[in-house]
Amino acid sequence: MSAYDDLRAHLRQTAALGEVAGRLGWDQQTVMPRGANEQRAEEMAAIEDLLHARRTDPRLGALLDAADAPDETGAAILREAQRDYLRNIRVPARLASELARVTALAQTAWEDARAADDVAAFLPWLEQVVTLRREEGQAIAQGGDAYDALMQDYEPGSSAAQVGAIFDRMRPRLVDLRDRILGAPTPPALQGHFPQEAQLRLANDLARRFGYDFNRGRIDLAVHPFSSGSGADVRITTRVVESDPFNCLYSTLHEVGHATYEQNISPDYALTPLGHGVSMGVHESQSRIYENQLGRSRAFTGWLFGAMQAEFGAVNIDSADAFHAAVNRVHKGYIRTESDEVQYNLHIMLRFDLERALIAGTLAPADLEEAWNTRFAADFGYKVDRPSNGVLQDVHWSVGLFGYFPTYALGNIYAGCLHQALRADIPDLDARLSEGDLAPATDWLADRVQRHGGLRPSVATITHACGGARPDEAPLLAYLDTKFANIYGL
Amino acid sequence: MSAYDDLRAHLRQTAALGEVAGRLGWDQQTVMPRGANEQRAEEMAAIEDLLHARRTDPRLGALLDAADAPDETGAAILREAQRDYLRNIRVPARLASELARVTALAQTAWEDARAADDVAAFLPWLEQVVTLRREEGQAIAQGGDAYDALMQDYEPGSSAAQVGAIFDRMRPRLVDLRDRILGAPTPPALQGHFPQEAQLRLANDLARRFGYDFNRGRIDLAVHPFSSGSGADVRITTRVVESDPFNCLYSTLHEVGHATYEQNISPDYALTPLGHGVSMGVHESQSRIYENQLGRSRAFTGWLFGAMQAEFGAVNIDSADAFHAAVNRVHKGYIRTESDEVQYNLHIMLRFDLERALIAGTLAPADLEEAWNTRFAADFGYKVDRPSNGVLQDVHWSVGLFGYFPTYALGNIYAGCLHQALRADIPDLDARLSEGDLAPATDWLADRVQRHGGLRPSVATITHACGGARPDEAPLLAYLDTKFANIYGL
Repeated sequence: MSAYDDLRAHLRQTAALGEVAGRLGWDQQTVMPRGANEQRAEEMAAIEDLLHARRTDPRLGALLDAADAPDETGAAILREAQRDYLRNIRVPARLASELARVTALAQTAWEDARAADDVAAFLPWLEQVVTLRREEGQAIAQGGDAYDALMQDYEPGSSAAQVGAIFDRMRPRLVDLRDRILGAPTPPALQGHFPQEAQLRLANDLARRFGYDFNRGRIDLAVHPFSSGSGADVRITTRVVESDPFNCLYSTLHEVGHATYEQNISPDYALTPLGHGVSMGVHESQSRIYENQLGRSRAFTGWLFGAMQAEFGAVNIDSADAFHAAVNRVHKGYIRTESDEVQYNLHIMLRFDLERALIAGTLAPADLEEAWNTRFAADFGYKVDRPSNGVLQDVHWSVGLFGYFPTYALGNIYAGCLHQALRADIPDLDARLSEGDLAPATDWLADRVQRHGGLRPSVATITHACGGARPDEAPLLAYLDTKFANIYGL
Repeated sequence: MSAYDDLRAHLRQTAALGEVAGRLGWDQQTVMPRGANEQRAEEMAAIEDLLHARRTDPRLGALLDAADAPDETGAAILREAQRDYLRNIRVPARLASELARVTALAQTAWEDARAADDVAAFLPWLEQVVTLRREEGQAIAQGGDAYDALMQDYEPGSSAAQVGAIFDRMRPRLVDLRDRILGAPTPPALQGHFPQEAQLRLANDLARRFGYDFNRGRIDLAVHPFSSGSGADVRITTRVVESDPFNCLYSTLHEVGHATYEQNISPDYALTPLGHGVSMGVHESQSRIYENQLGRSRAFTGWLFGAMQAEFGAVNIDSADAFHAAVNRVHKGYIRTESDEVQYNLHIMLRFDLERALIAGTLAPADLEEAWNTRFAADFGYKVDRPSNGVLQDVHWSVGLFGYFPTYALGNIYAGCLHQALRADIPDLDARLSEGDLAPATDWLADRVQRHGGLRPSVATITHACGGARPDEAPLLAYLDTKFANIYGL
């Protein structure tokens, strides 16, 4: 056995254990008995300890030093494994363990604080998490920027400066578009009662049409929709609100985008560092293009309008155009996860600027609420009414996910680029979408993006898929301008 | 930290990982997507490798040498941990890994051979498994008897000589009882169509009545009923045959017996070597007494007769006595798992004698089928019609479970002893059972047996529960004689 072969075997076993830990997470959120909570925490801690030990094992370092990559795939595996290893050994064990302990407690504190709209109760926890993650970012950065270092956990190769420049260009365009939309008449919303069973039947049909392989996955109900697992076992969850079928249908399409990415990665990469989505940004590009550019298109919603009438009987919308407008309705709201395509990125930019300042130390956690509210009023044109609709709405900061938010907007930007290239390659796309036939689009994405897994870094992944053009925000902004001008008659 | 504290921490993490491995097994048999099979095998192998490494870790040996038990619980923990460690380090890593590999393949070969009634196709696999397990038994026994050594994996403290002596006393009594029963008229069987939904509703009600805690468990459907997990997460499965509701109801009660044993163990023992049932024999005593001595009693079936009429409407049985006879119907059959209380132990004795001879080398695998068929005809009075109803019916030997079968009969014997003691302590038991009230019986079992987990070795566990009387076969035989004499008018 060569050092490279030994390395592959080591990484393979770690990846298999990582899948096991992921499956435990799925279990916890779908089928676990309520009374098993404490015992499960101990089981999770045991497996996370083992994973941490393997990921910082000096033997792994020696293998990485000694291994020679035999080919392009091998080189990519070494690149990914080397980056993870260097990141992990730079974090002192004491700090890693303290972060795990504090974020577990902070998440519970956040849940309570949000329920009580009590920012002060969460503040001490936020201060601890910010301090620890800053310390971690500094340890990883070794003299570089701490926030940049944290971003690498989610979008390797990105930087705050580069993302900030993109956001600075996008923000005025989106604020202006939002203003014009909210100045126009609001189209009617879909109303009625949509039984759970019928919603789930339609959601399953949509998942199948968008290429989700039920032989290597399953759909269950959970409080928060998510996708979990890689390779041959990629499960998603959805939720049902009987007054709002779009909640179930579009969160299903979103998770199907994540899940098919994992399912379609080349089996050659299974249980290697290339065997899962290359970054959170590219992951989000798949969920977003499934959900938005495809799922909320005029052509596809035309088909969906008929499918919903077939499933639910007559609805209160009388034309396919009005149905398309209802699906893409832009309205005032506070919550990121309930936002539309136009305002969503404004939610992200706000969080990006605030969390960057928190990690830099130029914004004190005690001043966060005021900063949030001021910025929200400026970008959205109305005031936050209460903390659970403002600074307390997201789980991310309580669990230490600083540097994660920008990947949502990067995903939207990547989706815009992919959508432009996809339309150029498939001239009859709308004709197929209007028949509920997603195969041309999802096959293109599987071939251009998904099957490659982690072979290329994230920007290179999108550049490759788009035939050589480096991703930027222009296609997304042009798409939004055209789409919402049509719907709102701007 | 003392060596004892370090040891406890080491064992605790191992136990937590063991629970994780168990949950993966549950997942595989209930919810896993079909296409995930191969990947799951690799995930299981990864976690089993880790568990093996921890269980044979020289650091564990050093801690066991250095640790002093502070109290009775500590002494029991040391006793159990020491036995496991000695057993594990005596098996060469090469042999353990070869056994895992060969039994995985042999199980598939057995499935195919059983489906094709092809003993010859399974023979080469059986030969390999017998050879490897003999080698393992010899390695553990270190000059002692290999089969005795294998029995310790399932029933620590037992020996083939002692079990064989019990079986030799029981066999003629059971053969005689079976002959007299089959010479009497056979009572009518329950017939009709019993919808799945109603069966599961009743099975859930029975589980609750028998003390199963749904806050720390759940019931799902699976091909083979089983119980899995310890402490705060103990799940069971059941199955439904719509023409035979007793299949679902009594396999649920059986698994509830196993599961409540795990659920009722003192929380102080959670994630220690005392935190699960002390032996397979004691485990089976709980499943059997729930299913048989309680669940198939005249008093309880009187209540169940009414509950079934309420759930399913009128059935083809017109009295509680006839219903009791239908539940306890003894009939000719080939399959151990479908057998009644009288013939069940004859199935076990046959397997015990044959597998003991296989491990000793006095019976060649090539001669096993003939030996099976000859012995079956002698004990049961009729001939095996085909291998899938004979030597190929059980999975056990294909996966290397030599020494396991006798624990089923030991469980029945222990259940007989516990039932005698229980009745002596609860004079109004039948009055309560006839109201569907299991609490006095299950509370007694929880207090006398279940909460103690692995504190005492298995025979001592039963002796303690029975107020000092060492277990033997007499109460079981007396119970069977009386019960079946009443039903069959012998």
